[in-house]
Amino acid sequence: MQTTVPHLTTALTGPLLEIETHLLAQQPQIETWFRSEWQKTPAPFYTSVDLRNAGFKLAPVDTNLFPAGFNNINPAFFPLSVQAIQNAIERICPTACNVLIIPENHTRNLFYLESLATLQRILQHAGFDTRIGSLMDGLGEKQEIELPSGGSITLEPALRQEEQLQLKNGDGSRFNPCVILMNNDLSDGIPEILKNLDQNIIPPLELGWGHRRKSDHFQHYSKIAQEFAEQLQIDPWLIDPMFEKCGEIDFKNREGEECLATHVEHLLSEIQKKYDQYNVDRPPFVLVKADAGTYGMGIMTIHNASEVHELNRKQRNKMAKSKGGQGVSDVIIQEGVYTFETLGKDEAVAEPVVYMMDHHVIGGFYRVHTARGPNENLNAPGMHFEPLAFANPLNLPDQSRDPDAEPNRFYAYGVIARLAMLAAAREIHEVIGERNIGEPDNG
Amino acid sequence: MQTTVPHLTTALTGPLLEIETHLLAQQPQIETWFRSEWQKTPAPFYTSVDLRNAGFKLAPVDTNLFPAGFNNINPAFFPLSVQAIQNAIERICPTACNVLIIPENHTRNLFYLESLATLQRILQHAGFDTRIGSLMDGLGEKQEIELPSGGSITLEPALRQEEQLQLKNGDGSRFNPCVILMNNDLSDGIPEILKNLDQNIIPPLELGWGHRRKSDHFQHYSKIAQEFAEQLQIDPWLIDPMFEKCGEIDFKNREGEECLATHVEHLLSEIQKKYDQYNVDRPPFVLVKADAGTYGMGIMTIHNASEVHELNRKQRNKMAKSKGGQGVSDVIIQEGVYTFETLGKDEAVAEPVVYMMDHHVIGGFYRVHTARGPNENLNAPGMHFEPLAFANPLNLPDQSRDPDAEPNRFYAYGVIARLAMLAAAREIHEVIGERNIGEPDNG
Repeated sequence: MQTTVPHLTTALTGPLLEIETHLLAQQPQIETWFRSEWQKTPAPFYTSVDLRNAGFKLAPVDTNLFPAGFNNINPAFFPLSVQAIQNAIERICPTACNVLIIPENHTRNLFYLESLATLQRILQHAGFDTRIGSLMDGLGEKQEIELPSGGSITLEPALRQEEQLQLKNGDGSRFNPCVILMNNDLSDGIPEILKNLDQNIIPPLELGWGHRRKSDHFQHYSKIAQEFAEQLQIDPWLIDPMFEKCGEIDFKNREGEECLATHVEHLLSEIQKKYDQYNVDRPPFVLVKADAGTYGMGIMTIHNASEVHELNRKQRNKMAKSKGGQGVSDVIIQEGVYTFETLGKDEAVAEPVVYMMDHHVIGGFYRVHTARGPNENLNAPGMHFEPLAFANPLNLPDQSRDPDAEPNRFYAYGVIARLAMLAAAREIHEVIGERNIGEPDNG
Repeated sequence: MQTTVPHLTTALTGPLLEIETHLLAQQPQIETWFRSEWQKTPAPFYTSVDLRNAGFKLAPVDTNLFPAGFNNINPAFFPLSVQAIQNAIERICPTACNVLIIPENHTRNLFYLESLATLQRILQHAGFDTRIGSLMDGLGEKQEIELPSGGSITLEPALRQEEQLQLKNGDGSRFNPCVILMNNDLSDGIPEILKNLDQNIIPPLELGWGHRRKSDHFQHYSKIAQEFAEQLQIDPWLIDPMFEKCGEIDFKNREGEECLATHVEHLLSEIQKKYDQYNVDRPPFVLVKADAGTYGMGIMTIHNASEVHELNRKQRNKMAKSKGGQGVSDVIIQEGVYTFETLGKDEAVAEPVVYMMDHHVIGGFYRVHTARGPNENLNAPGMHFEPLAFANPLNLPDQSRDPDAEPNRFYAYGVIARLAMLAAAREIHEVIGERNIGEPDNG
């Protein structure tokens, strides 16, 4: 096995070793607990989770239900994805043969298109005839785009035919999918063409950023972290980022600043208390994020409540707009978790991103960034990172080795990421009620 | 990807290329068909299938429901096993935390113990507290055995406590499994200690060689091969070994020889007709096997019906006894399939063995044998072979490459092995009826 795993550059690894030790010792109990949870609340079709590892704390900071970045995963693990997808689709639509992926509309982002091509390839390996149906305006005919990695990807205009979404075949017949896989996070809400279809749509449209709120997710997560920590007999804070929220913020017109400043101050002092308890000698910080945002837009790092009043026009404009262009009004103020994992002699900051399909961890990668500090968001617009694929799988913990040995640290990532996925599963359940995942909302 | 795949040393690859081409072209239809079949008939917990690849024909020759040889699989694929096991046990007993493996009794076979240790390790990775409960007479206390690969394995005496099978813990308490995993093929029938337990037992005890018949398996397989070949529009013979059967043979006392000779002669002439049709210029041969046998005991290769009458005393004694010592009475006469896969400059004969967990292919290896011919059984007692682990997974067929390219040949192996597994699933269904797999037979 390779050992290209980042180095933890902090002396504060006591509590993390404690988490890892507990996870390892109680692995059978943890896996049994997860099994019973997935029976109660089925996992999303696919999920990616950004983690931050501060040595003293390991926590999720973002959970994506329309993940991109599949091209950054080690291809050696594709068989795991293939197997997981076969199981997931077996439950949703056992007779499915055709799958239609609905992608994001940014066709100029080659990184995104590489991810899309990888996702398509994995579905094809799994035995599904898989095509890509774009919702882009003005895509009259199908468009083939060459990819830097070789090969190409074909986008085809999705056509509405009564309650079905279809593609045109070359011979005039239609490609009629049983499963529509959303890889578009619906920041602008649900477009007309997707409404009231009688096909299976995964994940459910209501989970797009037009509806979803980060604060809902982290509220579910906090509850889960508490349940889980109780079982493990650890302090839930070691795996849970604290947060507060403010509604009705208008950055452009400087409305709601006072509310924000108060919450920032309060949260910073809560974090400081925990830092004191664990002898962490770094300054606490918080992140202010759009509650309905994605792609790292509309995010800022704050160390002091006074910074809220000192935002310049450019910063305020940036916060006022997030992806898709809707104005920010609700924000979440989240405890910042340091990234103390670094790589190489430059000590580049590395943030783990874990990918799951069905309820299985199928791989991941580190976002490695030389030009950023340990307290900065590593997934910001225009940000350049080097992906470093996880060399090893995340489901082979090794009791005979140190709690912090590579397979065991990876296992810990996988457990925390699955807790975040469980929070997303409960979000979905809350939204779709007793409907099955994928089942159309028209019965 | 590595390319250590055996060379097909035959000019007769036309029909095989045809099979592979069909499998590749119809992959989505094949996978959809398998999905619907597994819904009707759940797959066994684990299965291994011996295949023979004659270039013109690719067929299963043995299907094992209590597989050994896990130590011969590429460890890089263990994550696939972990994931498949988690799914299988989720269905059988979602609350399972403890698993008890019941092994074979031959503790001196270090190859077997290495396989057992690997199986235990995979279950532990999957999050099950897994121990090994031996049925061996005279195992008073637990026994730790050092393994050549390093590490050790611990066998503990299985104890009956009312309707439960348990192990003793060091502190006087008991280890109480929810799932009992049989890795003992019950050649001698079902021992008293296993009868009427209220725990889940997989595979069901009725599938041991005390009850199971090879001819039942291949009858199911023939039917499946026919259904499948019809869908693919190929000749079913290309994937199906013909067979006939004889009851009441007593080799020791030379009773039933005439029946056997007649069937051998008939089957040889049927094979010859097929060889003529496909221009195969090799002599046909058949294998005579105990209908209730395993481990390659009680098997002989015959090219001519007259050989049946010319068996010497040693050969007759060998056929009269198979594993566990029960006398052979029913025999199956099976079409011999040449192995035309060879490896290296010595042209060592290589036979693929495919492993499955739940309904997923999780790896395999070639039995490589320098001292045997292409028409001999490669799994005979005392036989020495070199295992060559498959370097690549079997679920990543690549439409963009040749039908006989490595990932596609592996995909073909996986499809044919799954057809044999489906035959085993139907055997199980026939035996346990509407009971769920693993459900105890006392309701």
